[in-house]
Amino acid sequence: MLTATRQGPVDVAVVGAGPVGLAVAWRCAARGLRVVVHDPAPGSGASYVAAGMLSPVAEAYFGEHELTGLLAASAARWPGFAAELAEAAGTGFGYRTEGTLVVGLTSDDLAEARRLWSYQRGLGLPITPLRPSELRDREPALAPRVRGGAVAPGDHQVDPRRLVVALRVAAERAGATLVAGPVRELSELDARVTVVAAGCGAAALTGLPVRPVKGQILRLRAPGGGPPGFRHVIRGYADGESVYLVPRDGGEVVVGATVEERADTRVTAGAALRLLRAAVDLVPELAEYDLAEACAGLRPGTPDNAPIIGPLPDRPGVLAATGHHRHGIVLTPVTADLVAELVVTGEADPLLAPFTPERFAGHRRHG
Amino acid sequence: MLTATRQGPVDVAVVGAGPVGLAVAWRCAARGLRVVVHDPAPGSGASYVAAGMLSPVAEAYFGEHELTGLLAASAARWPGFAAELAEAAGTGFGYRTEGTLVVGLTSDDLAEARRLWSYQRGLGLPITPLRPSELRDREPALAPRVRGGAVAPGDHQVDPRRLVVALRVAAERAGATLVAGPVRELSELDARVTVVAAGCGAAALTGLPVRPVKGQILRLRAPGGGPPGFRHVIRGYADGESVYLVPRDGGEVVVGATVEERADTRVTAGAALRLLRAAVDLVPELAEYDLAEACAGLRPGTPDNAPIIGPLPDRPGVLAATGHHRHGIVLTPVTADLVAELVVTGEADPLLAPFTPERFAGHRRHG
Repeated sequence: MLTATRQGPVDVAVVGAGPVGLAVAWRCAARGLRVVVHDPAPGSGASYVAAGMLSPVAEAYFGEHELTGLLAASAARWPGFAAELAEAAGTGFGYRTEGTLVVGLTSDDLAEARRLWSYQRGLGLPITPLRPSELRDREPALAPRVRGGAVAPGDHQVDPRRLVVALRVAAERAGATLVAGPVRELSELDARVTVVAAGCGAAALTGLPVRPVKGQILRLRAPGGGPPGFRHVIRGYADGESVYLVPRDGGEVVVGATVEERADTRVTAGAALRLLRAAVDLVPELAEYDLAEACAGLRPGTPDNAPIIGPLPDRPGVLAATGHHRHGIVLTPVTADLVAELVVTGEADPLLAPFTPERFAGHRRHG
Repeated sequence: MLTATRQGPVDVAVVGAGPVGLAVAWRCAARGLRVVVHDPAPGSGASYVAAGMLSPVAEAYFGEHELTGLLAASAARWPGFAAELAEAAGTGFGYRTEGTLVVGLTSDDLAEARRLWSYQRGLGLPITPLRPSELRDREPALAPRVRGGAVAPGDHQVDPRRLVVALRVAAERAGATLVAGPVRELSELDARVTVVAAGCGAAALTGLPVRPVKGQILRLRAPGGGPPGFRHVIRGYADGESVYLVPRDGGEVVVGATVEERADTRVTAGAALRLLRAAVDLVPELAEYDLAEACAGLRPGTPDNAPIIGPLPDRPGVLAATGHHRHGIVLTPVTADLVAELVVTGEADPLLAPFTPERFAGHRRHG
């Protein structure tokens, strides 16, 4: 049991001011602990490039059963988390609940989408196939040649850049302090508990097998300053290309994302071409949108695509909260809640059992 | 005959510090005249976006016979102009003479290219059809599916942004003065002769029928800092899309350009998609290049697509040098030489006869 102190080392040092680190800091500070967050450039990591889909359903993949469970658990926490955060920060962050349409452009694409949503329904996840006419009733902006799709009403979205701003305000209002500088070694920190939420940077700090997985993303903008011509998040398959389109209130549409096993942040012509082609094939009016931004980020990937959350076995007082890969935004509430619980009580929630650092102990000895 | 003066109004005021205005200023100053160039943002107009193809041949179109003659005359002046400018400015500007390949991706594309180059050969312009194997010997980077093409050995290139820098240095070294401010009315200027080389801005200053024609362009960059994997300018037709690829020494490849009858400078998703698709279809390795820049500019178009060069009939002492549309860079030497000659001698070269402002006298009365 960690109780708040008034002097000596701080109670909790958090390394990394992305959504996970800031949410952990907020939750810990709200429980009365003295918290310091370290980051040379808050919000500049994977979240800066992320689309912000809260999609346990549309993002559930074969062979990732346990991860899907955690995604669903965290998505279930999102409504409450969003309400609390809006209250605590006094600012919105683009939380929207219209749901996600999963669509296939060609019959091959639709077959691929169908295999996935059959699996998802088998897991008990809420996804409902729609007739093409129902699909177009929901989103007339979809191309007439889209062959079919389904709706995942519980798959929502948030704007990650605004989320970081809101979490930072909430954490600071709760008493956490932000130190704008890098942490090169954990031994630099003088804290009773250290939480490593440093994304790809966790590898160098802890030896955990976190690797960068490059993602390229585009931001389009509706002409004339209006909102985009569609309201749902659209997760589409288009001539074998998987793409998502996330409409924002301010007129922005995020088009993502490549998944590349490389560590540079170059924006390439080929990736932009693939994303634009799939986007315009699915929603033709996007051709008239401004191409506002093209950028690339590095997701913290792990050997089994699942996050690493829990105490490091060989480093007392150090917890990991990293490796969230493509799921950092949706997993923010459950990660923050369970890490804060772990910090305060020393007890790990059973939900975290599949995601402990111990599962990579062999790797770490040899790594 | 205008002779240099030492006091009173300056000899020549040039409105516009794009390539045409600066080259006119350089040529006039080199002849001893006192020259002032006015521009709030030198080099920020159409030239900033231009690719810099010096292509009388690959850019010769049906029904533009007289314009093609002027393009050819100016292209013939380019080698001497480039040598003089390099000497005068002491700096290079990416002048390259490898020539242009005109290629067609599909058999339909090739048929379109062939019709054009038959017309060009009929005009006596140097263009030589190549067998597919000859094409690939010259540029192995071309896609295997490119059906055929031709070489225009006299179609060269220059880097317009560097050209503006060099012309500015040359003009200033020759004694011209640059005033970094806008000209709202020609009556503000106190000069014996005024040359309006203000691109699209000429319409408001003179009433000439110059309209903005939007062009969108991309800049790619070869990965790893090396030069692009091809040396020729490539003017290609790809599934009905017309595109050019201009490789630069520094690793840049310019991909252009849309031709749109509109006056905004938004970069749209659809234009980027069309340019990228055609570029990658023609030269597959471009998919791996960085997408370094996407931008749009406004070309000064005229009702007959030809420039407007010569004295304004109803405004003594005012010459136009505008309306160069898609051809401002290639036409810079002939425009500068003949306008300087006109300023000094008052005599118009016969080459300029088809391009006088008088041809739009009716428009101007009603405009």
